[in-house]
Amino acid sequence: MSSAPSTETVRPAARGESPLRVVVAPDSFKGSLSAIDVAHAVATGVRTVVPDAHVVELPMADGGEGTLDTLLAVWGVAAREVPTVDAIGRPRTARYGVSADGRVGVVELAEASGLPQVSDVALQPLHAHTLGTGAAAAAVLDAGVEEVILCLGGSASTDGGAGILTGLGARLLDASGEQVPDGGEGLAQVARLDLAGLHPRARAVRWRLAVDVTNPLHGERGAAHVFGPQKGAKDADVTFLDDALRRWEGVLSRETGASVGELPGAGAAGGVPAGLVAVVGAELEPGARLVAEAIGLPEEIGQADLVVTGEGSFDSQSVHGKVADAIGALAAEAPGRPPVVVLAGRVLLPADQTRAAGISAAFSIAPGPIALDDLLDRTASRLTDLAATVTSLVLAARG
Amino acid sequence: MSSAPSTETVRPAARGESPLRVVVAPDSFKGSLSAIDVAHAVATGVRTVVPDAHVVELPMADGGEGTLDTLLAVWGVAAREVPTVDAIGRPRTARYGVSADGRVGVVELAEASGLPQVSDVALQPLHAHTLGTGAAAAAVLDAGVEEVILCLGGSASTDGGAGILTGLGARLLDASGEQVPDGGEGLAQVARLDLAGLHPRARAVRWRLAVDVTNPLHGERGAAHVFGPQKGAKDADVTFLDDALRRWEGVLSRETGASVGELPGAGAAGGVPAGLVAVVGAELEPGARLVAEAIGLPEEIGQADLVVTGEGSFDSQSVHGKVADAIGALAAEAPGRPPVVVLAGRVLLPADQTRAAGISAAFSIAPGPIALDDLLDRTASRLTDLAATVTSLVLAARG
Repeated sequence: MSSAPSTETVRPAARGESPLRVVVAPDSFKGSLSAIDVAHAVATGVRTVVPDAHVVELPMADGGEGTLDTLLAVWGVAAREVPTVDAIGRPRTARYGVSADGRVGVVELAEASGLPQVSDVALQPLHAHTLGTGAAAAAVLDAGVEEVILCLGGSASTDGGAGILTGLGARLLDASGEQVPDGGEGLAQVARLDLAGLHPRARAVRWRLAVDVTNPLHGERGAAHVFGPQKGAKDADVTFLDDALRRWEGVLSRETGASVGELPGAGAAGGVPAGLVAVVGAELEPGARLVAEAIGLPEEIGQADLVVTGEGSFDSQSVHGKVADAIGALAAEAPGRPPVVVLAGRVLLPADQTRAAGISAAFSIAPGPIALDDLLDRTASRLTDLAATVTSLVLAARG
Repeated sequence: MSSAPSTETVRPAARGESPLRVVVAPDSFKGSLSAIDVAHAVATGVRTVVPDAHVVELPMADGGEGTLDTLLAVWGVAAREVPTVDAIGRPRTARYGVSADGRVGVVELAEASGLPQVSDVALQPLHAHTLGTGAAAAAVLDAGVEEVILCLGGSASTDGGAGILTGLGARLLDASGEQVPDGGEGLAQVARLDLAGLHPRARAVRWRLAVDVTNPLHGERGAAHVFGPQKGAKDADVTFLDDALRRWEGVLSRETGASVGELPGAGAAGGVPAGLVAVVGAELEPGARLVAEAIGLPEEIGQADLVVTGEGSFDSQSVHGKVADAIGALAAEAPGRPPVVVLAGRVLLPADQTRAAGISAAFSIAPGPIALDDLLDRTASRLTDLAATVTSLVLAARG
């Protein structure tokens, strides 16, 4: 006790109370601040009110764009790179991540197989594939991880995950035993799936797919009909791809015994979950919840006195599978049920719907009538001030 | 117990807890909502979260414009009227108020003697007077009150309070014993003050003047120099009025023994406090604090779990004698030190300066980037939603 720093003797902790524990776990403010910068601005505000607060900065993501960068930042590791190909087979380098303890790997499908990377040429909805992501997945398996997080979203292809499986050593064969082409067009000819060459660790690890849609593999609400057009598929292409995915489902069922035809979410990212669920037993999870677990957020929220999250626009989408929703649910499950506060550029969700999502309060950083550009210029400073305001109120309410 | 309404049996109160006590005591949102309407919108929001909360709506005012209406509303009484004159002697009806228990009367100087009421003709800075307010003051004394609240501000005159005293029966005489004219011009000739005809209750009641300036009666920072020009006084008029107020101070000192020459605030409203302090022993008080006491706010805050106030613009002025400042101070004095939250159209004061004024948090009703007109259209609904948000957070923080 006598060796405690003198500054602590005047703090609440020295009066026998624990320091305030605050978890700061925001999404990015898209087009304005990264999740890392948002977390830092908020943490600064908390500390202006409670200098000895135990503030944990855990920038969040929802499994979509930016998730890899967020996990790298929280894990404190650099990105690794693998030479691979893009969605139409051109050479490309993809980044991926391995946690500091080597246990978890993360791959973003859009890194190798994203739509933006092939938007410089005419879209090729039948040919586009996920082979390049397979190379990145093989690289994380080679790194010895026990768990692979695969972030879907932003895909250019409708290949039912065949490309990834191919990259992991599987072979899709037609009726005459020839390997079919990559992409949806190959699925239209597939008759057999040869898994003899599958990466030896492919079925030894836990695969967790970040999926935020419930669309099935095929049919009216399937991958081809719903997501095909934005990848360049005309009406005839959609029909062709939908038939191809149906055929692929049949092959997967025969070869693995798995039934993915009705699986909600199997239609994400051109049907990637279908192939990975059937072959390697992948699990589909809401992205934000998956990321939260990957960064240890449930444990931190379990000990928190206050949880602050945030995003650019807090609206009805936010409480359906996004970061704020996941955090609200985690706080509701925590024994201490810590208050959850959302700080946002815009707050469009009414208070009652906010509470219904397990979120105590959502506040806009707008200090009054203000133009968007002026607010964007002040996002970080306003976040700091608003975080101080919220901390001050929570402290006062705790009495 | 068995006769309690069944709805209460599922409320926290039935679990042995007291219902949440919330005091809602906002100023008006100038140009948008009255304090009464703001209080109602906020109370509605609180009740959406805690239906059985004990919510006390006490609209506030700072002793300036709107104070009479606010006190009438809180007291639940109608305005009374008295026929009198305006600042240049034209017939005018002035409103005043008497509390439901008959104990306290309130007079707004601007009702009879305000500058706006004489702005239809050329300003008459030497002639303008407070005689009309004297008639209203006499009416509240006739009503039998024990205490008179006199709200200054908005005056057209620089008469040292001579008009009010005249209205209460005093006579200002020149060296030859003739009654001097009303207004500052009369003070230039005054030699004696005859109090023989003073209203019999004038010295029996407690006079409380709502004063938010510290200017003395005369001199560089006095009533004539600082406030004269806005009432139409040219340079020569200012000098004339300053000399007249100095002469008036001498007469008051000789006749009553009171020394008001250095009294901070004696220069308010053209020097009204000078005459009333000297003759009837009036007390000068910050307006917001005075109103707070008149509506029983200190007692309510003493029992509150949460105090919500508000105003159109929360800025550095707000924490210097305004409503938010008074409420922050009252909460800091309350044994339970309830959190105080400001809801405002604009929040311009940083969090640290807000806390320094005893206010836990200030939030803007702006939901994001928004134009002023759009926000004005939604003031009431945004106040309700934000009050629900704040209540929700306070509840969650209390655990």
